Amino acid sequence: MRTYLDYNATAPLRPEARAAMIAAMDVVGNPSSVHAEGRAALGIVQTARARVAAAVGCQEAEVVFTSGATEAAGVLDGFGDVQVAPTAHDALWAHHRRSEKGASIYAMGVANSETGILSDLPKRDEAGWHAPEGTADFLMLDVTQALGRIPFAFSWSGADLAVCSAHKLGGPKGVGALILRRGLDVEPLSLGGGQEMGRRSGTENVIGIAGFGAAVEAAMRDLAEGQWQRVEKLRNILETSLEARANKTIFVGKAESRLPNTSCFITAGWKGETQVMQMDLAGFAISAGSACSSGKVRESRVLRAMGFDASQAASAVRVSLGPETTEDEVLRFVQAWLGKEEKFRARSAA
Amino acid sequence: MRTYLDYNATAPLRPEARAAMIAAMDVVGNPSSVHAEGRAALGIVQTARARVAAAVGCQEAEVVFTSGATEAAGVLDGFGDVQVAPTAHDALWAHHRRSEKGASIYAMGVANSETGILSDLPKRDEAGWHAPEGTADFLMLDVTQALGRIPFAFSWSGADLAVCSAHKLGGPKGVGALILRRGLDVEPLSLGGGQEMGRRSGTENVIGIAGFGAAVEAAMRDLAEGQWQRVEKLRNILETSLEARANKTIFVGKAESRLPNTSCFITAGWKGETQVMQMDLAGFAISAGSACSSGKVRESRVLRAMGFDASQAASAVRVSLGPETTEDEVLRFVQAWLGKEEKFRARSAA
Repeated sequence: MRTYLDYNATAPLRPEARAAMIAAMDVVGNPSSVHAEGRAALGIVQTARARVAAAVGCQEAEVVFTSGATEAAGVLDGFGDVQVAPTAHDALWAHHRRSEKGASIYAMGVANSETGILSDLPKRDEAGWHAPEGTADFLMLDVTQALGRIPFAFSWSGADLAVCSAHKLGGPKGVGALILRRGLDVEPLSLGGGQEMGRRSGTENVIGIAGFGAAVEAAMRDLAEGQWQRVEKLRNILETSLEARANKTIFVGKAESRLPNTSCFITAGWKGETQVMQMDLAGFAISAGSACSSGKVRESRVLRAMGFDASQAASAVRVSLGPETTEDEVLRFVQAWLGKEEKFRARSAA
Repeated sequence: MRTYLDYNATAPLRPEARAAMIAAMDVVGNPSSVHAEGRAALGIVQTARARVAAAVGCQEAEVVFTSGATEAAGVLDGFGDVQVAPTAHDALWAHHRRSEKGASIYAMGVANSETGILSDLPKRDEAGWHAPEGTADFLMLDVTQALGRIPFAFSWSGADLAVCSAHKLGGPKGVGALILRRGLDVEPLSLGGGQEMGRRSGTENVIGIAGFGAAVEAAMRDLAEGQWQRVEKLRNILETSLEARANKTIFVGKAESRLPNTSCFITAGWKGETQVMQMDLAGFAISAGSACSSGKVRESRVLRAMGFDASQAASAVRVSLGPETTEDEVLRFVQAWLGKEEKFRARSAA
């Protein structure tokens, strides 16, 4: 029996997404084709667009479907000066580039994937967005980890752009969106057939987009019904149970506003990678860093930016829960992890 | 009852792809995660990679999964001088840029999407690839329409890069690949988590990639079994039947080497868009241009480049058949189209 506690890496496909994807498999057309088959495919894309817009809190015309948040973040390359929050995901961080030329933009995550910590949005006045490195003309928010888990509305945020992915909220991997405030003129993400109003060429991932739309609708329903309050209680049970015994373990951001599902904890000297492997053998899927870098053995840039030393940053694990997580799963994880932690302490003391 | 004759726009999902995709829906992990769930997801991607490599005739390490040929063609932006064949797809053509600086590349389609005409590959010597606009250091082939329909091997072609999409051969829309000759150093398609050996960041479209792998394997089996010879016979029946009655209609590239499934024909003065709509109402899905531009009313750049005048280029339709096409479907199309053509002639004569 396996227990999946790595929702921030990727969430299981929701049944609603599965059903929508299987239904879309029977629609043969290309959304760019004018015949009935093409119009049916376009209809699937447009239904999903309306669902994503409703969930993100933006207009339908502001949604550009992409292969995920990473591709969407490529829009940053069209700006001159790209300031990026040091705790942002690699997909944003990779575009960090200071320049005197061209429009300036500040890119940041609403919720950190490794720690779950929520960021305060910068203030705006006539000078622009007041970002840590200076003012910026535009603001881009990465809402990948936040969407469907905490209340968020693009329109209320005041941001100019946002990026998100379907698979963190129960949609398929490999589909996401760039949200572009109406009227904002940016470089196209790709060139060719002119799909997505010319902002992202390439035949649409119709099946994946159908899954995204169905998943985001289901995720918003879960959020409205208070599912994540239940998840938060489980996360708190997890942390309370662990810290009662593992008194050297640091729970990152525990005093701060966090995602309801995420717990990142450091046990100095006990490598995160080792913990992940030990827990994997015991039947639990957790992570030692952000999803996409979790396959690579390296210290966390995010934790280093938060002021942890190299040893601490290499000794963190992330447990991230989801709507399907049960209390029994959490308690079994606690028992298994504490058993390994006791052995680690015994080895350290020897 | 509908008859789908627009395989060059997109092909119906193969049953093998459908089954592989549904199976992949149950695999929860992120391929970058090191735990069992992550390794299972990675296994799906790697199985598909082996299948794509076998079909394309390249090594597994040369396959970079993308959201389609259009995204893959974005690799052209990393070159200085980008020569593009005038009959190439918009996804290549959009990157046409002559420059004295940087490495030069020539990009071309192996088979044209609108006419099915096969291109001769350029010759190479010490000066480079002998392309129409001059020599080029590198050669990129768009094999999107050719793959699975005619024999092709990347290794034998000598090309440095290739791009392809899953959905033209019965895989899902929104997944494809960039093929990079081993040792070739190019700019990453996207930055972030470092997936695909750093050449294309972003969480992989695991479900779509599974479908791509299954579809390409099935397509190669069909090709080996001679399915496309049967399709070619149907295409020839189509053209023979049409030209027996519509003696003013020009069959584009009939004397040239073509894809076995494609027929592009011009009936001067009878707009392609009108024909498509009339045939749609009669139950047939055909196209008036390349797939991704077929939603837009404009003359064909490809036909203009071949020397047809503006009126001719606006009066073309494309009928493209597939392995599921039956003789009965072709004959019913012939009857329906000839009926409309007779009325068109009557109107023109009036």
